[in-house]
Order: sequence, then C-alpha cells, then structure tokens
Amino acid sequence: MMKVGILGATGAVGQRFIQLLSKHPWFEITELLASERSAGKRYRDATKWLLETPLPEVIQEMEVKLAEPASLKNSDLDILFSALPADIARKVEVDFADAGFKISSNASAHRMEPDIPLVIPEVNRDHFSLIEVQKRKRGWDGFIITNPNCSTIVMVLTLKPLMEFGIEHVNVATMQAVSGAGYTGLPSMAILDNVIPYIGGEERKMETEPLKILGELDGESVKHAAFTISASCHRVPVLDGHTEAIWVKFREKPSVDEVKKAFMDFKREIDTPTSPQKPLLLMEQEDRPQPRLDRNLSGGMTVAVGRVREDTVGVKYIAMGHNTIRGAVGASVLNAEVLVKEGWQ
Amino acid sequence: MMKVGILGATGAVGQRFIQLLSKHPWFEITELLASERSAGKRYRDATKWLLETPLPEVIQEMEVKLAEPASLKNSDLDILFSALPADIARKVEVDFADAGFKISSNASAHRMEPDIPLVIPEVNRDHFSLIEVQKRKRGWDGFIITNPNCSTIVMVLTLKPLMEFGIEHVNVATMQAVSGAGYTGLPSMAILDNVIPYIGGEERKMETEPLKILGELDGESVKHAAFTISASCHRVPVLDGHTEAIWVKFREKPSVDEVKKAFMDFKREIDTPTSPQKPLLLMEQEDRPQPRLDRNLSGGMTVAVGRVREDTVGVKYIAMGHNTIRGAVGASVLNAEVLVKEGWQ
Amino acid sequence: MMKVGILGATGAVGQRFIQLLSKHPWFEITELLASERSAGKRYRDATKWLLETPLPEVIQEMEVKLAEPASLKNSDLDILFSALPADIARKVEVDFADAGFKISSNASAHRMEPDIPLVIPEVNRDHFSLIEVQKRKRGWDGFIITNPNCSTIVMVLTLKPLMEFGIEHVNVATMQAVSGAGYTGLPSMAILDNVIPYIGGEERKMETEPLKILGELDGESVKHAAFTISASCHRVPVLDGHTEAIWVKFREKPSVDEVKKAFMDFKREIDTPTSPQKPLLLMEQEDRPQPRLDRNLSGGMTVAVGRVREDTVGVKYIAMGHNTIRGAVGASVLNAEVLVKEGWQ
Amino acid sequence: MMKVGILGATGAVGQRFIQLLSKHPWFEITELLASERSAGKRYRDATKWLLETPLPEVIQEMEVKLAEPASLKNSDLDILFSALPADIARKVEVDFADAGFKISSNASAHRMEPDIPLVIPEVNRDHFSLIEVQKRKRGWDGFIITNPNCSTIVMVLTLKPLMEFGIEHVNVATMQAVSGAGYTGLPSMAILDNVIPYIGGEERKMETEPLKILGELDGESVKHAAFTISASCHRVPVLDGHTEAIWVKFREKPSVDEVKKAFMDFKREIDTPTSPQKPLLLMEQEDRPQPRLDRNLSGGMTVAVGRVREDTVGVKYIAMGHNTIRGAVGASVLNAEVLVKEGWQ
Repeated sequence: MMKVGILGATGAVGQRFIQLLSKHPWFEITELLASERSAGKRYRDATKWLLETPLPEVIQEMEVKLAEPASLKNSDLDILFSALPADIARKVEVDFADAGFKISSNASAHRMEPDIPLVIPEVNRDHFSLIEVQKRKRGWDGFIITNPNCSTIVMVLTLKPLMEFGIEHVNVATMQAVSGAGYTGLPSMAILDNVIPYIGGEERKMETEPLKILGELDGESVKHAAFTISASCHRVPVLDGHTEAIWVKFREKPSVDEVKKAFMDFKREIDTPTSPQKPLLLMEQEDRPQPRLDRNLSGGMTVAVGRVREDTVGVKYIAMGHNTIRGAVGASVLNAEVLVKEGWQ
Repeated sequence: MMKVGILGATGAVGQRFIQLLSKHPWFEITELLASERSAGKRYRDATKWLLETPLPEVIQEMEVKLAEPASLKNSDLDILFSALPADIARKVEVDFADAGFKISSNASAHRMEPDIPLVIPEVNRDHFSLIEVQKRKRGWDGFIITNPNCSTIVMVLTLKPLMEFGIEHVNVATMQAVSGAGYTGLPSMAILDNVIPYIGGEERKMETEPLKILGELDGESVKHAAFTISASCHRVPVLDGHTEAIWVKFREKPSVDEVKKAFMDFKREIDTPTSPQKPLLLMEQEDRPQPRLDRNLSGGMTVAVGRVREDTVGVKYIAMGHNTIRGAVGASVLNAEVLVKEGWQ
Repeated sequence: MMKVGILGATGAVGQRFIQLLSKHPWFEITELLASERSAGKRYRDATKWLLETPLPEVIQEMEVKLAEPASLKNSDLDILFSALPADIARKVEVDFADAGFKISSNASAHRMEPDIPLVIPEVNRDHFSLIEVQKRKRGWDGFIITNPNCSTIVMVLTLKPLMEFGIEHVNVATMQAVSGAGYTGLPSMAILDNVIPYIGGEERKMETEPLKILGELDGESVKHAAFTISASCHRVPVLDGHTEAIWVKFREKPSVDEVKKAFMDFKREIDTPTSPQKPLLLMEQEDRPQPRLDRNLSGGMTVAVGRVREDTVGVKYIAMGHNTIRGAVGASVLNAEVLVKEGWQ
Repeated sequence: MMKVGILGATGAVGQRFIQLLSKHPWFEITELLASERSAGKRYRDATKWLLETPLPEVIQEMEVKLAEPASLKNSDLDILFSALPADIARKVEVDFADAGFKISSNASAHRMEPDIPLVIPEVNRDHFSLIEVQKRKRGWDGFIITNPNCSTIVMVLTLKPLMEFGIEHVNVATMQAVSGAGYTGLPSMAILDNVIPYIGGEERKMETEPLKILGELDGESVKHAAFTISASCHRVPVLDGHTEAIWVKFREKPSVDEVKKAFMDFKREIDTPTSPQKPLLLMEQEDRPQPRLDRNLSGGMTVAVGRVREDTVGVKYIAMGHNTIRGAVGASVLNAEVLVKEGWQ
C-alpha cells in the first residue's frame, strides 16, 4: 500500500477524501493535517463527521497534525492530497512541494499557472509532463498537480469528444448543488424554495479552465484551446450533482446522431480503481439526466449526458455529474492513480 | 362593476383567478364554470382550496356551472376568463366566442393562430386590433385574446426594451417553479433534491411565441420578429417564480450600461389596476433577483432583472418573474383591463 | 434459487421489490403481475422506472401478466410478494392464496385478521404458526403472511426490548417521508416548505398493529398486548426515512441507562440475507438519528434510535428507519426468508 | 409617534423588527444599535437585507450606533426593543435598564427571573405589574419585559383556554422552521431532505416557560402553574411556521367539543395595532393547519389549531404559528403596545 496524507482533512472536502480513500486498494491514509484549531486533537474530536457512511474507526483515533512541512519531518508519504481552501492552499501547497511532497490538489489556487498540470485523466493526462518543467523551473523536489473546478469537469468531459467537430463557442447555464459551497457555505434560509443566480468566481473558472485542459502541450506550457465560453452559474436546492445546460457552436456541423455517437464512443484509456468504465453515459429518456437519480453512476465518477438536440447554431444538451466526487475528491484521487500507473510517482 | 366569469374555475389556475379577481376594483365574479365533475355543486364542495389567502365567502356558496355556452344563456357577462387546459380550451373557447362571449384566455390552444391576439400590454397591445380581423373572418359575435406562456412573458418583457439594439439571437435557460405544472402536476418524489431538465412543449413555446409578440402588425396578421431563440427548460424545487438566464446577441453592440438604461427606462404606458408601475425592476446586487425574495414585487406583476454583464457575443443577464401571477392569471386580467380601458369591451 | 413473483410489480413499491430481489442470493424473480393497464406489455414499457439503481436488463424484457391466478396456471412459484394497494389486495390476495400460492404481503388489507400472521421476524416470528390455523379454517392450499405498516415497524422494533419493563402507554409523533405516499401520492406543491399534519388511516394503524405484533399466541389467535398507544402522524419534506418521537410510560421505572442497555442488547435471532446484524443501532450524538444520514444503515434494514432521555412519566427517545426498505419491501422479503429458513416454505 | 430603538438591529430578528415597525401607527424607529462590527456604519452598509419586502429608504441611511447606553445619551426613546442573542442580552439589557430605558426583549436571558415579566398579552398581561417589583428591587429607572420562546408562545396560546379543565400533563412534539435558528444558523446541507431531532435548549424552554406564564401573581413573584410538560423538539425543512403536536391530560375530562368551544371562545381582551382579532383560529379541515398555508393569518399573529381529537388520556391536537412574527418580533411589539395602552409607558 502507498502512504497518503490529506491537507485540510477536517473540512467537508477532507471528509469526502477520507470516505473515498479509506477503502482504496492502493492507498492507505497515514497522515491527516489541518489548521491550528484542529492540530493535536484526535480526528474524531477535531471534526463533526457529516457523511452518510460511518467514519472509519482507524481514522477516528488518528492525530491531526498542523498543516506545515515540519509536521511530516520523517514521514515517507507517497502522495499528499490537498482539500485546502484556495487562499490557504496558495502558500501551504508551495511549502509542501518545496519540501519534496507530491501533491494532488483539489484547490483552485495554482490551477492556471503555466507549469502546473490541470488534468482530467480521460482528457489530457499528457499534461502531467509539465511536472518536469515545474520541478526544474521552481527547483522543487516535489510537485503540484491539480484537477479542475467541479462544474468545469462535468462540462469538459462532454466537450472533449466534440473537439473533432471544431468547437467555436460554448454557452453553459449551471444548476449547482449546495454541497459545492462547503458544509456551512449556504444557509438553509438562503436556498429553501429559492434559486441563487450567482456563485462567486464560478463563471470565470468555467470560462478559462476548459481552454487550458483542452489545449495542447507546446514545449514548456499549454497552448490554450481557441474557442470561447460564456457561463451563467446558479445554485439550486439540490444536495449533490451539478446539472448543466450546454450549447455548442461548431465550425463543422455535426448532426445530432454524430454528436451522440461521439459521446458513446468516448472511452477511458487507462484502467485504475477510481476510473469509471464509461466516463460518459448517454441517456435517451427525454427527462434525464437528473441529479438525484443519476449522480451515483459508477460510484459518482460517470457524467451523464442527455437531451442532445439540434439548435439553430449547433447542438444543445444536458450534462450532469456528482460535484464532490467526479467534480472534486474523486478527480484528485483519479489523478493520483494515473500518476502512479504512469510512473510519475 | 363589470361582470366576469371563469372557465375552469376549480383548478389551480382557476383558484388564482378567484384570488386576484375577488378584490378587483372593476370586475365582479358572477359565473364559475367547470367540467361535469364539478357542475351543479357549490364551489366550496367542488374544489379543495389551496391558496394562502382564504376562499372568499361569497365565492364559497356560488354554484359551479357546466362549461358550455348553454349554461350562460341569459347571462350578461362582460368578460370570460379561461383557465382551461389547452386540449379542452381548443373547442370550448371557440364555442363561447361563437356564442358572443369575450374571452381573455391563459390557455395555449389558440395563441399562435394568426388572427388571435397574443398580447403583453406593455409590449404589443396594438395587436388587439386583430380582434376585428378575427370577428370578421370567423363570423363570431365574441372573440378570444390570449396571453403568452409563463416563461415567455418573463423573457419577452426584458427583450422588448432591447429590440432597439437589433436582436439577432437569444439563448435562454430556465429554472422553473413547480406551480407551473399545476397542483398535481409534479409529484414531490420527482422534484425534492432534484432538477428535471425537461418540460413538455415549453422550449417550443419559448422559441416561437416571442417572435409573434415582438412582431409587427402587418395588415390582417403579425409579421413575426426576425431573430432566433434557443431555449433549454428545467424544473427546480421552487414553489413560485421562474428564473431565466438569458444571452442576447445584437447587430449593434450596446454596452452593459446602455442595456441597463434600456431596462430602467422601460415604462408601462397604460394605467390599470393590475399594471405595475414598473414592469421591469433592475437590481444591482450581485446575487439577485431570487425567486423567493423578489417574486412578489408589485403584487407579483413586476419582472426583476439583474446581473447584466458583458458577454463574448453580446450581453447576458438574469430575469425572474412570478409565473402564476405575471406569467398567467395576472397577465389575463391585465389584458382584460386594457381591453376595457381601450374600448374593446 | 427459489422462484418468486410480484403482485403489483409496476408501482413504486413493486419497483422497490424488484430492486431488492434482483440481487437476492436465494430468490429469483420469475413472474411480474399487475393490472389490466399493464398486462401483456414488456415490463420496461409498462412502467416508468424511478429508482436510483438501473432497472435490471433481465427484468426489462419480462412480460407483465394480469394479476389473477389464471395467469400463473402452470407456474411453480415458491413465494408471491404483494405490493398491491389495500383495496385491491383485499380480493386478489385471497384469490391467490385460495389457488395455493404462498403470499408475503406488504398490503394492509388482511393484517388485523386473527388468523393472518402480522410479523416482524425480530419480534414475533412465532406468530407464523397462525399459518396452520389459517389454512385449516379457510381451506386454502396457500396462505397469506403480512408485515406491518412502515411507521409501525420502526416503532415496534424499539418497543420490543422495552416490554420487559411493563409498558403502560406510548405516545408517538411521526415525521414521515413522502415516499410513504407512493410516487404520485403527494404533489410537490403540497409539501415543499410545508408540513402536512395528517396521513389518512396512519394513526389508527400505529395504535392497533403494535398490540397484535407484541401480543402473545393464544391457541388459534393472538392475545393483543395490553397497553395503549396514541399517535399523531405528520408528513414532512423528506424523501425516505420516518422519524418518530416516542414517549413510553412503564409500570416499572427503568433508568435511562437500563433502556439504552435494552436497545443495545436487542439482537436478531435468525441469520438470513436481509436480516441486519443489528436490528437497532443506538446513537449517542445529541442530534441523531437523522433520516438523510442514517436511513441506509445495513442497507436500510437497521432502525436507529437516539436521544434517550428521562421524562416525567418514563423515557422519551427518537427512532428512525427507512420506510420503504425496513418499513415495507425489506420487511416482506425478510418475512419470506424466515419462512424459508424455518421450513414454512 | 413614540420613539423606539432596536438593540441588535442588524441580525435576522433585528430585520424583522424593522419590517414590522416601519409601518407601525404608534412607533417610529429613531435608533438602531448593534455590535462594534456595525457601529458607525449606515444601516444599508452594516447588514445584508434578507426579507421579501424592501428595506425602507429612511432606515437605509440611518447610522448604526454601538449597543451601549452611552450611545443614547441625549436620546428620548420611549421603548427599546431587544433582538440580541441571549448571551449578549444578559449584560447589555441590564445596562440599558439601569440607565433608564424601557426594554421589550425577545431574548431568553432574563425570562425566568422572578421579577421580570414573561408575558403573552392574551394570556397574562397582569404580570406586567412585576415591573414595579423589578424597579424597586433593582433600583432601576428603566425595566425589562420579555416575551417567551417562539415554540412556547404557539403552545401556550392553546393551553390558556384549556386551563379551566385542569391540565395535569402536556406532551408536545414540535416540527420547527429553519428561520428559528437565525439566518446562518442552519446550513442547507444539514436540513435539505432531512429532519434534525434536536434543538439546543428548546425542550427546557418549552417545559419551563409555560408554567411561569400560566402561573398566578402571588405578591412579588409568580406562582408557577402546577402541571408538567414533556417536549421533543425537531427541525424540519420549512422556512417559517412552527407546527406542534400536543397531547393534554386533564383532571376533568372535557369532550372534544368542549375543547373546540374553548378554543373558539378564546378572545383578545385588548385592542392594539398588532393584536389579532382572533388569537386562535380553529380549523376543521382534516389536514390543517399547515405552515405554508396558514402562517400568515392576521399578518402572522394568529395561531391556527386543528385536528382536535379524543385521546386515551385526554385530547390531542395540532397548533401552528409564525415563529418569527407571533413567536418573536410580533410578540415583543405587542407587549410594548399593551404597555403603552395600559399606562406602563
């Protein structure tokens, strides 16, 4: 078993990491790190466990350490997962990478830096070669790899197979689950019987991250893809699962059937424990996908796509994926698995 | 007081008509009509009253009559409101119009017929002149006027002031309230913790009705507006209030400030009891409008618009309005008021 | 594998039976029966599948037969599960029992008849001996066994271990999930942002069924338990999981710790695939159990109990269980398993 | 107009005070007080307004002052409303009372002190005479009066008319709205599709406050009522309106009709702007009251009661009232109105 640690282990994302990793066939959690408020406590005392599955007993009794490299002095961690908030990740992840740790981060802090890989394995795992650039330029022993924002991942998995038709422009309207805001992020009084048509920073992420992910390696950086994206992001009273209405305008004019075929033919090319057999599942019922019914496909790692229909300027369709699994924690774990499988680790 | 009747008085829309009309300064409900199941009963026995305000006592005891012209033989109704489902409205409304009744209908059955006015008073009340065409062509003593679909009304009120900039294309994603499906239309098991990305017939209505409403009278019919619309319609767990994310592409390129000014300058031009002082309210807070907070502006008759922002191909913004008031019953009542005010009745 | 059929296979309860039984190690679904509306169709065409797990392919293509004994003329079914509504079950179940079928029914129709076993295996599986009485008295080749109402099961599993303290009176207030009303039973407009303090027939069931279940076999019938129950039943906006606030008054005055110990010591005495290791799980956190977090314990078969505290007249506590699994379909399947294990089948 | 101020003006309860008082015929808001975080700011900048009705313009521009008596040195306030949290109210309210201010407090801090009136005007406004005791004993120029906890008020309004039958014991299970926890009190992830069977301190309040309110003045304090109460308190996904299932055991055995008559005959005895014509409304429909439909009766000041039915040991029924209006802000305002009307102010 490889040894892994979690930065930010006590928050909502950290808990999901524990949930996913505690039954992982390759990884064993040996270190939990968090802020001063939690450091020194047993995990069970440092957090209020909020998931539907019980907190594993072995984790309950582990000591939470302070999230700084000194805490892991004699540790032989293979991978460090980061569930830190962006503002804290900015410094802390750098400190750990500098100290030699290999970090798979869910934080947004470093995603758009030219020498940091921003990867969805089914889409652009060749971008991991930026690790070499990063280590050389920064003089780090370790490195940082990142996965995209939750709503970005759901969309990009559907855009990848459509790249062959020459994407010119994408419009997307999201209906995002409350879990994306973190456990205390959204008061019940704000969202019951309501829609909030704004999520801070989300539209910018959806309009920029996909262009890096779908771009091509060009020497020491990525040449971003050349189309445009316009996003409108909204919060709805749903627990898990982001639903996205997507319009795509193409240079070539694929038929609806060609688009459906592209979705159906889209395959994973690497077999690891968390990678789903089908990254995309095309649904033909007129009222699917739906978050409550479809968010747990392949343990939450498959994105469901449906209602593919012709549009005045291209096609439109619905995509839906589990935001905290496929869109966050599962994405980080999958990235780490691919690192291992391909020998980066 | 003018005498009014309600076709389909026992359903969810019929109840809203009673709620709005029972305190109306011009109109007095004198006839309630419904299907065989209810005909002959007192209103209180024919329906389960479901609104937050109590069923007026005078209505409770009124007898429900069968929805056919023979039931109103010696009646001197001034206006007949129709809350019928589309499939029933198709025949019944024609029977009543033929028998001399003046019908303000919320049903979709006749909206797109060339000689039937489809009107939002703030937008195209000049289309009421089709009444003359209709009566002449069909040989009716009465007539039918209609208001658009709920999601159409919310959008069109925001498009009207933008027509001056030369609209080329509109994309719209809706997040629609459950009340739009009628009282039993949507099981709780379908929508709790869920989004349903499909509403039968809704996208077609949103893509066609606005072109007639925003079109120009041209002799005996309306020349439809010449832009295109692409809609994606979704149901969310909200009781009342449709939220719409709208992208508009223009021939001319108005700035965000010009678009905001157009919204702010948009005025009603006719003063009747149900017409709101401001048909549009521009909100500047970054997270508004929201259905729960803003759906009752001006008694539910004002559409709130916000988050106007630049887009790669034009502007994008959020519109939100009360679907069963501004989008249905209030729209029918407002149409009837304007008929009266302008002498059609 | 034993062969089983499902009466009422196309409804919400019928779908849950298919979900549970399609991976069952002992039972294989060989017959699906429903009303005239569905008879003759393939299952996939006869119903709209509404569960989170996909409809098994082998079931999709099975033909639905008319729910009458003639449909199963040459069938060699071992057990027939009934998911019928009570009013239809009243006649149809009798027809099948008379024709020799062995029925494990979730319907309420026959529960309170003296010679029909009403059983929760962990509580009163000795009542299955009424099968002999039933067959003899009625001259049937087959028989009917039943499980209690969903809210009854959750409560009775917690009352059983307290019987030793001499229960005198029970008060119970329920907060019941919408799935208990069936798929279309509760419109979203009725329950969003609301509580409905009434469920037809529910209080009567909760006040009578437990007395039969907790009663003692006395010759050819059951001598009902001698305490009283007063229930107040309410529907809340929760998908699955009934939460119950329970007060118990005792002849002897057990301490809170004695009551907790009785809950913890309560064990299943029979090991079958669906029987949970722990029928009751005592939770010590002050805000548990909660339906969303705890309803899937042991696949939905464990009832969680918490907040045990002293009361002026006894103890009070919270019980919560999955209403359509532990409280319905799982209960019927478990009854059938025990029948098999103990040789009734 | 009398001049009033609000302590804790920027929180959720403070906002409700502003909403209610800004159209009050007797009171004019002249002072807004809050913590250091808000002091010195304009009200519009100090808070995020969250109510459905717009923030009055005159209030928007008012300066928020620090919540200490020095801030009101030359003020001539007639009444000071307190929307403070309990822990802060404990000291701050005393400081203000000591400095001569007359405080109508919604905070729980001082409710149970023997010389502080805990009043629901329709129930025990004679307890206001404790003001004299309080001023004398404490040497204050001002004084503090309090209203009960939200769930207490709803219940006590229904218990008062039943006192004539000799109440022996009360059981109550609550289904409480999320607004009772304050704006950020309850994360959406905690309560969507869920019930939380615990509200800190709530059961204790419901089991003690009613005995003081329903007690009798006895010299310098109140002799508490002599029955017992057992409460189980639960949070449900409802925005406003607490629903309570109540069982009452009597010494005398009133019939259901006698209990209903007592509810119907219960009258307010004092006419002020906020006092509802009917403090209690008896509903006869089998599924009422419901929070969404009935919480706004008489502007949220009437408690609805229904489902009165016989029980093994007395009667049981459902009570429902608006928790932030009748149960909080409206209660404080009503208390102040009665003070004025009866000459205490």
